[in-house]
Amino acid sequence: MEVLITGGAGFLGTRLAKALLARGTLADADGSQQPIRRLTLLDVAPPAAIDDPRVRVVTGDISDPAVIRAALTPATASIFHLAAVVSGHAEADFDLGMRINFDATRLILDCAREHGRRPRFVFTSSVAVFGGPLPQQVSDGTVATPQSSYGAQKLMGEILVTDYSRKGFIDGRALRMPTICVRPGVPNKAASSFASGIIREPLNDQPAVCPVAPETPMWVMSPRQAIEGLIHGHEIDGERLGATRTLNMPGLATTVRDMVAALDKVAGANVAARIRWEPDPVVIRIVNSWPGSFDAARASALGFVADPDFESIIRAHIEGECGR
Amino acid sequence: MEVLITGGAGFLGTRLAKALLARGTLADADGSQQPIRRLTLLDVAPPAAIDDPRVRVVTGDISDPAVIRAALTPATASIFHLAAVVSGHAEADFDLGMRINFDATRLILDCAREHGRRPRFVFTSSVAVFGGPLPQQVSDGTVATPQSSYGAQKLMGEILVTDYSRKGFIDGRALRMPTICVRPGVPNKAASSFASGIIREPLNDQPAVCPVAPETPMWVMSPRQAIEGLIHGHEIDGERLGATRTLNMPGLATTVRDMVAALDKVAGANVAARIRWEPDPVVIRIVNSWPGSFDAARASALGFVADPDFESIIRAHIEGECGR
Repeated sequence: MEVLITGGAGFLGTRLAKALLARGTLADADGSQQPIRRLTLLDVAPPAAIDDPRVRVVTGDISDPAVIRAALTPATASIFHLAAVVSGHAEADFDLGMRINFDATRLILDCAREHGRRPRFVFTSSVAVFGGPLPQQVSDGTVATPQSSYGAQKLMGEILVTDYSRKGFIDGRALRMPTICVRPGVPNKAASSFASGIIREPLNDQPAVCPVAPETPMWVMSPRQAIEGLIHGHEIDGERLGATRTLNMPGLATTVRDMVAALDKVAGANVAARIRWEPDPVVIRIVNSWPGSFDAARASALGFVADPDFESIIRAHIEGECGR
Repeated sequence: MEVLITGGAGFLGTRLAKALLARGTLADADGSQQPIRRLTLLDVAPPAAIDDPRVRVVTGDISDPAVIRAALTPATASIFHLAAVVSGHAEADFDLGMRINFDATRLILDCAREHGRRPRFVFTSSVAVFGGPLPQQVSDGTVATPQSSYGAQKLMGEILVTDYSRKGFIDGRALRMPTICVRPGVPNKAASSFASGIIREPLNDQPAVCPVAPETPMWVMSPRQAIEGLIHGHEIDGERLGATRTLNMPGLATTVRDMVAALDKVAGANVAARIRWEPDPVVIRIVNSWPGSFDAARASALGFVADPDFESIIRAHIEGECGR
């Protein structure tokens, strides 16, 4: 079978690619495990080289139909759609957000529909679809009223995924991911970028700025757990999802204060002391519109799992990224 | 001020136009009542002539940007966006539904944004955004999981209306209308078309087919109440709507059986006897996915009202349409 990852050069895309290549198989339309013969990584820039004959790289703008057609062929049985313009960027550039987060999603869905193969389609949505007045704990029965354009675009993408699945064009599943933390690399324009920065930079002996208050609630997931969640999301039988293909992923409910306390405990007070607290109203407005805690009952019943605690997330980051 | 009605040749559009012309004013951006100097009616076909110098007619496909630009000018202060492909039609022709119900809505919003006047924008959404397993009574806190492409397209339109309002591009309000009944004229491709047909046709001495079971719950609103709701929706202060610009309109909870019983009572058993019961699985699937009863608390608190009973709806139809 052939598999496509959009955003395949990104941090999650690259990890997902490696995990899929190591795993070797995925469920085909009929549910049987089939060997992955070709894995296409699509992104604006080429990914760091992965030495595997199954890997094919397509570079280009995902809002360009010709690029989509080059990456998504009639043989593509599975699509992981990870490419997106992040929250802060989509808020600053509305048109770019609409084009990449919504129009490109629709292009991919329409290309898949045209091929008629009804591929499995895993869409990474986000906790950012929620906003406005929210209950203490968000549940599967909480209405999503996004307060950012990123959230609005992801929510519209979810609706397409469910309707295209209902019509039999694809076999979709839209996973509302918690804030992924700790991301390696450099800060990005996501409003949640600080959540990784305040752990990653101090561990690299660098200063970090925290733009939100210590008591800010956070709903997080480690990269490792996110990859497992995406693969599990692909493997489950779509028929089990019923009237909506959207799922709130389980996550770890914490606060910025508790994240820093965990860093203190794992790496020492001198490390945590590298964080400067400088409130940024723009980031605060977006982050505070997101819920900090969920009852992700539906996804849990379907076998999705959360990280046990934040210390283990930091330790996994140190093992995987800091080479210690 | 200038006002635009899309779907201005349709049944609701024509009635709304007459009501606005009779009323003479609407709230401008600052909330002050301003005289309506020009009322543009946009539709695929010209409306029945309305003899009023304020009326301007634009004919064309609303998914054509040139048509939108001809109808929506920098002076347009208010937009009532009624044009749509109805539920049964959008289900049968997916691409047409996406183009008219979603893409055209976005075109209008983008044209308004370009003009920079931040017009009031009244979007007619629908009870059809709901579907799947629902509580006995749907409330403002019920998640919309549409089970028709029409519902999905309307739900995406609502999300745009809220996000464009949040960004300050427009001052929108999206009203989820109950099934409008009794519509005059001929049947259309709406799955709910029978709800008007089983009243209208027998009153015109014609036979009617009811494709759903008598116990089918219905959430209805008379044309008269719908027009009042659209105007009230325009007049309320958008700031009062908060995190979402979407409102579940109050309606009348009834059943097909009770609708027929009301017809029997108002017009006699010989009239109601003209209904033939012929179940249609396609219509049943769509109609049964809609909720039959709502607690429309938020809209009620904002001053929207429902019809008191179905007999008065039939009587108003007879007075207004049957010339008796």
